[in-house]
Amino acid sequence: MKRELFDIPEGVIYLDGNSLGAPPKHVAERMQEVVKHQWGTRLIRSWSEGWWEAPQRIGDRIGRLIGAAPGQVVVGDSTSVNVFKALMGAVKGTDRTEIVCDESTFPTDGYIAQSAASLAGLKIRAAHPSSLDLTDETAVVLLNHVDYRTGALNDMRALTEQAHEIGAQVVWDLCHSAGVLPIELDALNVDFAIGCTYKFLNGGPGSPAYIYVPHEKQAGFDNPLSGWNGHREPFAMQPSYEPDPGIVRARVGTPDILSMLALDAALDVWDDVDLAELRQRGLALTALFREHVRKLTSLEIITPEARGNQISVRCPDAKAVMDELIARGVIGDHRPPDILRFGFAPLYVTDEDAITAAEVLAEITR
Amino acid sequence: MKRELFDIPEGVIYLDGNSLGAPPKHVAERMQEVVKHQWGTRLIRSWSEGWWEAPQRIGDRIGRLIGAAPGQVVVGDSTSVNVFKALMGAVKGTDRTEIVCDESTFPTDGYIAQSAASLAGLKIRAAHPSSLDLTDETAVVLLNHVDYRTGALNDMRALTEQAHEIGAQVVWDLCHSAGVLPIELDALNVDFAIGCTYKFLNGGPGSPAYIYVPHEKQAGFDNPLSGWNGHREPFAMQPSYEPDPGIVRARVGTPDILSMLALDAALDVWDDVDLAELRQRGLALTALFREHVRKLTSLEIITPEARGNQISVRCPDAKAVMDELIARGVIGDHRPPDILRFGFAPLYVTDEDAITAAEVLAEITR
Repeated sequence: MKRELFDIPEGVIYLDGNSLGAPPKHVAERMQEVVKHQWGTRLIRSWSEGWWEAPQRIGDRIGRLIGAAPGQVVVGDSTSVNVFKALMGAVKGTDRTEIVCDESTFPTDGYIAQSAASLAGLKIRAAHPSSLDLTDETAVVLLNHVDYRTGALNDMRALTEQAHEIGAQVVWDLCHSAGVLPIELDALNVDFAIGCTYKFLNGGPGSPAYIYVPHEKQAGFDNPLSGWNGHREPFAMQPSYEPDPGIVRARVGTPDILSMLALDAALDVWDDVDLAELRQRGLALTALFREHVRKLTSLEIITPEARGNQISVRCPDAKAVMDELIARGVIGDHRPPDILRFGFAPLYVTDEDAITAAEVLAEITR
Repeated sequence: MKRELFDIPEGVIYLDGNSLGAPPKHVAERMQEVVKHQWGTRLIRSWSEGWWEAPQRIGDRIGRLIGAAPGQVVVGDSTSVNVFKALMGAVKGTDRTEIVCDESTFPTDGYIAQSAASLAGLKIRAAHPSSLDLTDETAVVLLNHVDYRTGALNDMRALTEQAHEIGAQVVWDLCHSAGVLPIELDALNVDFAIGCTYKFLNGGPGSPAYIYVPHEKQAGFDNPLSGWNGHREPFAMQPSYEPDPGIVRARVGTPDILSMLALDAALDVWDDVDLAELRQRGLALTALFREHVRKLTSLEIITPEARGNQISVRCPDAKAVMDELIARGVIGDHRPPDILRFGFAPLYVTDEDAITAAEVLAEITR
């Protein structure tokens, strides 16, 4: 849809935007401006010329892509740290006894959930989204919108309702769905959401993550990482912590401005993207690749019909096959033990890319 | 000592390197290489071409500046997040009942200490480094090496011994001392240390912080933020968290590579710096400024003789005076209620800068 805006090297079919999105061309120039002018010339003054508020401003830009009205998303820290904030915030003061975590989750969510449960004195229980078995002991459920291995799309509306019916809260991990399809956090009354920005949003390697805390939850949200950036008056240098009344309380320490402003630049390409149209392109690209893989190979496709922008294929010797694919210019990745993953970012992946990738995969696995 | 390597704007006397260090000239070019080549051309492959190990590699570079042998420092996250890791790690499993926090600390350390104490079920007590009153109930003491307001240098050797004598651990905050004077973490048997990299180390706005966990503490160090980057086998995607045996367990989520590699570039200027010589230059510069302020003004200097690279001056209308100083090209900063701060980074501040700054201050406050 916007391939001309991206730097994709000659001869490369890039199907790993679900792991690290490609850079929009103008990001390099913006970084020069940030380093030379904002940092170099303006020096400390830049903190009051846009840097300090960047986490909220960029949070609002992401908010538009995930169905969050302004003032409910803030950017900063890693996904793991934001999972910690969301879970600790969700269980604070609860008299319920368990955190339920998607058993197929990307591991870091589960690792952090274990630590949060331990610190808060709750049990952790792993369950598949298809059979969560929530009870009135469930304080919060941590779910992935799109499964990182299979690409399966979970039903955010149904699962959020299922949690709410029993009085539990839900934390959605949007790492593999933001920038893939329209998301409606506000409309679905989601309690908390977190996500990274370096996959389909193309924010750059390890670009800062974000957290969504809806307006009605903010006053009761206790950030366990009560750093000075979340203080009501950070520059008053008061001895005790008084959180900002709004989303700013989800901030922690001084934000990583270079990574954050690269993300800011990268988000420019999203300003006029119609997410419904993007979704159709993503479905078309993944369907096209799937069709050709089915036609040309006997490999098992494990991605279900309800999916994100990813097709996952079971394949013996997945690592060796992916190495060979990469050697031939088709870049995806693999996950243990035997999964090849192919991500289709509609902003820069073409129909021809999808077809050629399937053909090369067929040649290698023939 | 190395002014020619830095971008300092014409007509500016920059005395705020204690808040945001100036950029070494080559950082902008390095960022181009990182964005265009590493991210743009190599794409996901860069993760196995140096990105993944960057937090340890850059940690070792900082280690040289703070007296830590390799394998004990890792870079990532903000200072606040690293204070949380260090304190939670220090109190894990303790049967002691209090955390003692420097009452003059930069606020975020105190805010985080409050949260850590609350989560771990300990009390928090604020005390001045000169009268800590440690008891056998003290689990850990959180101290600043150099006070952010006054520039006072605390005696790391004496205070560490004082804590150890009573069986308490110590966490040192090096934000205002790294890059100022030789630090000997290993030699002084420090338990934990943390610090930022955007002040005297010139890593860039909000560049990632670091944590020091000495070898003998690593096996017992439980990172409360048990993200996948700290796992023994992160790419095995195992369901349960098994920490890396070494310093890697202090990592959390995916590192912010652009900010981190800007820091990496900035550290190049430190490679051949003799820290003892640097210390002498810092003392000379601050003494020169102090002498001229004393001679030309009647303002009270609150920085004691034992100091970092900073001179702090009490001044009514501190904000208005600093605004005027900045308007005349002398950039320092102010802290409430009435403190002017002037930082002297020997790598790029000259004797002439120090004298002129005192003269301009005298003109304004005459």
